[in-house]
Amino acid sequence: MAIDRTAPIGVFDSGVGGLTVVRALMERLPLERIIYFGDTARVPYGIKSVPTIEHFTAQITDHLLGEGVKMLIVACNTMAAVASHVVKERAGDIPVLDVIEAGAQAAVAQTRSGAIGVIGTPTTINSNAYARRMHELNDSLRVFSQACPLFVPLVEEGWLDHPVTRLTAEEYLKPVLAEDVDSLVLGCTHYPLLKALLQSVAGPQVRLVDSAVTTAQAAAQWLAREGMANPARSLPDYRFRVTDIPLRFQTIGERFLGRSLGQIDKVDW
Amino acid sequence: MAIDRTAPIGVFDSGVGGLTVVRALMERLPLERIIYFGDTARVPYGIKSVPTIEHFTAQITDHLLGEGVKMLIVACNTMAAVASHVVKERAGDIPVLDVIEAGAQAAVAQTRSGAIGVIGTPTTINSNAYARRMHELNDSLRVFSQACPLFVPLVEEGWLDHPVTRLTAEEYLKPVLAEDVDSLVLGCTHYPLLKALLQSVAGPQVRLVDSAVTTAQAAAQWLAREGMANPARSLPDYRFRVTDIPLRFQTIGERFLGRSLGQIDKVDW
Repeated sequence: MAIDRTAPIGVFDSGVGGLTVVRALMERLPLERIIYFGDTARVPYGIKSVPTIEHFTAQITDHLLGEGVKMLIVACNTMAAVASHVVKERAGDIPVLDVIEAGAQAAVAQTRSGAIGVIGTPTTINSNAYARRMHELNDSLRVFSQACPLFVPLVEEGWLDHPVTRLTAEEYLKPVLAEDVDSLVLGCTHYPLLKALLQSVAGPQVRLVDSAVTTAQAAAQWLAREGMANPARSLPDYRFRVTDIPLRFQTIGERFLGRSLGQIDKVDW
Repeated sequence: MAIDRTAPIGVFDSGVGGLTVVRALMERLPLERIIYFGDTARVPYGIKSVPTIEHFTAQITDHLLGEGVKMLIVACNTMAAVASHVVKERAGDIPVLDVIEAGAQAAVAQTRSGAIGVIGTPTTINSNAYARRMHELNDSLRVFSQACPLFVPLVEEGWLDHPVTRLTAEEYLKPVLAEDVDSLVLGCTHYPLLKALLQSVAGPQVRLVDSAVTTAQAAAQWLAREGMANPARSLPDYRFRVTDIPLRFQTIGERFLGRSLGQIDKVDW
């Protein structure tokens, strides 16, 4: 069965974080329709076990495939790190992109010194997925990883440029910066909101890799190469599905998306 | 049907936090059997909507009632704040205690100035449950509440006495301390681990109310009054049930419990 070029791109995450990927897609591919799925009733995945994350990932994948998407984007580093095989097994001919693949490719392409830092949630870092993928691409690289469990709550608190966040970043980044990395992969979809602060703590000699932006670039390349870009000339529709609509969802979601969220549907499971 | 005095006490929480209540119960009631239920697959509840929290609470209540417990303790401020009616409706003759009732009673009993501070997660604070209950007990009290969303992640990171935690506490407590409170209710089961730091930030004129300790006292009083204490002379059994066993569960759990966790069973839902 041929895939429909006018079908939407399915983007999913454990919560609101993946909206940074949606934002990058909207900017890079303004004619593409997007369905976003955020599992806000069970967020965060980063502190859960691998079998639990695999189970949740399978449920969301099936839901989006049922919507007839033309591409799946795993916009959650935790799911990409430990459960991307689950998505690919179920997706069949539908292409599957993920933030780890896109971030790893971009970091390997840009490094000059061969020393790369990666920051993320404990589950992402413990999975070693970024380092493994970068070593597959170039086995002479040196990769230094650091879990930063407080960054997600700091972003959700809105302390994007706060002394507490700066002090926390200085502590987390110290061992990575001591290795003279020239690239730092933001291995969590919340971290693009800390870009300015992280750049200032890391210093001008370190280039940040924003995996939301690199994922949107990878999606654009695939669509162009396969002739699968949406031929529509009208503005596309965006749909947002969540498993729960908590108190601060609208506020936090719009901070991530950089614009109004519009229609949000709650899925009851 | 008469309730069995030798039956265990059922204690439940959205995650590991309620283990501070278990610890207080073990110290105060060393002959009582305890079943702990932590919904670690869906933690944290504090960022979820009320209908979702009610649904999760009903599931856990039914599970523990099926185990024949003689008392239910809601060791989660979020569940106590928004869903304690769900527990009581299902529990019938089984007594239901919760951390908010116990903390509110203790704070009202100890205040001299009549000005009380309450800190907790955003959901607990927004529910206004502590202030409402304290005003029912004494309508001339002045209650000042403050949500502290970063304290849970800071405790789970183990930064119990860290400059970042101190700076965060100073910022959160500033408006509450400006009201000259003489009592500060720790309205989240994670916060007892920050007691030393919070006492030092609040100053010696403020007395902290640890709702884990006050809940254990309330349980002891009820058991004594109703003649329902366990007559056993041997050491009791402790059982720990969780819906997921994540990477750091053992480490964090033992930090909360102050001893080894022993047998942990995973419940598959």
